[in-house]
Amino acid sequence: MLGDIIKKDDFKNEKHVPVIECPDKVKAGEEFMVEVQVGKEIAHPNTVEHHIAWIDLFIHYDGDPNTVNLGRFEFGAVVGQPHVKHVIKLDKPGKLIALSYCNIHGLWESSKEIVVE
Amino acid sequence: MLGDIIKKDDFKNEKHVPVIECPDKVKAGEEFMVEVQVGKEIAHPNTVEHHIAWIDLFIHYDGDPNTVNLGRFEFGAVVGQPHVKHVIKLDKPGKLIALSYCNIHGLWESSKEIVVE
Amino acid sequence: MLGDIIKKDDFKNEKHVPVIECPDKVKAGEEFMVEVQVGKEIAHPNTVEHHIAWIDLFIHYDGDPNTVNLGRFEFGAVVGQPHVKHVIKLDKPGKLIALSYCNIHGLWESSKEIVVE
Amino acid sequence: MLGDIIKKDDFKNEKHVPVIECPDKVKAGEEFMVEVQVGKEIAHPNTVEHHIAWIDLFIHYDGDPNTVNLGRFEFGAVVGQPHVKHVIKLDKPGKLIALSYCNIHGLWESSKEIVVE
Ligand SMILES: [Fe+3]
Ligand SMILES: [Fe+3]
Ligand SMILES: [Fe+3]
Ligand SMILES: [Fe+3]
Repeated sequence: MLGDIIKKDDFKNEKHVPVIECPDKVKAGEEFMVEVQVGKEIAHPNTVEHHIAWIDLFIHYDGDPNTVNLGRFEFGAVVGQPHVKHVIKLDKPGKLIALSYCNIHGLWESSKEIVVE
Repeated sequence: MLGDIIKKDDFKNEKHVPVIECPDKVKAGEEFMVEVQVGKEIAHPNTVEHHIAWIDLFIHYDGDPNTVNLGRFEFGAVVGQPHVKHVIKLDKPGKLIALSYCNIHGLWESSKEIVVE
Repeated sequence: MLGDIIKKDDFKNEKHVPVIECPDKVKAGEEFMVEVQVGKEIAHPNTVEHHIAWIDLFIHYDGDPNTVNLGRFEFGAVVGQPHVKHVIKLDKPGKLIALSYCNIHGLWESSKEIVVE
Repeated sequence: MLGDIIKKDDFKNEKHVPVIECPDKVKAGEEFMVEVQVGKEIAHPNTVEHHIAWIDLFIHYDGDPNTVNLGRFEFGAVVGQPHVKHVIKLDKPGKLIALSYCNIHGLWESSKEIVVE
């Protein structure tokens, strides 16, 4: 199932891994900017034949079984880079998770813990 | 990570589980219809407050590490049911995987093996 | 603006035009199936280099200024055909509108009036 | 058709209008950041019952009949604001066009000319 086929790696070595950047700690209910990208350290190709088509961003709140979809970002091949910043707000701490999709190399994920108080 | 939080269950008992229906065997490169839905046995609510927002359909080819995104289907709350049929074609056998998202109850998946010859 | 650049044509002559098929008359609040496709009469290419990437489906209710997005359907190049059936329900009569996107030839639309009683 | 029902207005008076911000002039093939948001001057509600669900970004190149979809951005109600920055690159001058969708108030658009040299 998806847990067996979504790939993980260190983004410094592997160009497909999405990178999530935002403050380590934010205030509950206050807007902040999260940056999500593929290719931060090693650029991924962006051609019609081979490109990152989309990144989905989720939050998995601590102790809550239900994941929330914060945003879905889709990129036109060649013209759109897999690199966005998105304004979000959270009420509870948890783990941000990004899922990215390469039309050749499939699904990749990464996560970042965030404190919300 | 996503493998730990995407939920699985029997669709006959659990209304969130996506159901994939298509022939068990198809011919390589020939179009066929795949039906994907949430709520086949037990209807899921479809209100603004609580609904299935989207279903993603993937194929994981046997022996290939890279998953392919066949379609993404997004539903307007109330008016759009989480129930689609989509025309696809495959060249190799594998496992169809559906990932569905409820705005309250998060991520759910199911799969169906398909023979392609 | 978009009204100037979204193209319209007869789907029997022009392969990009989305075709909407459903009953001419339905009952308010009852589910029915709408079929939406590009290439009904003349097939559109479906290659990595040239394909229909998505179709959006809307309803514009008679006498209401606000359009409702019933579904968004996105297709993996080569494997996913731009051809779906979607279960929807309506409370009021109006005009169904499909907007399709070719990665080379841009935006195309078509519509179909539907009676709801 | 869509040209008749997509609404336009001044974003300073009307909270639904998407705002596009980026340099007036960029170099061909060089990446730059475009910022797209709804509610820049007057905030739009962001509740489950009433929110901006998505913004699509297009470029209509001067003298070219075919529009290109640069990005599609979808926002989880409450947690995701309709406010993104996206890295893009262009080869030719044209008009950036944003199309936004409110689940209650329908489709809105705005545009910004961009010089590419
Ligand atoms: Fe790749
Ligand atoms: Fe639910
Ligand atoms: Fe085309
Ligand atoms: Fe609104």
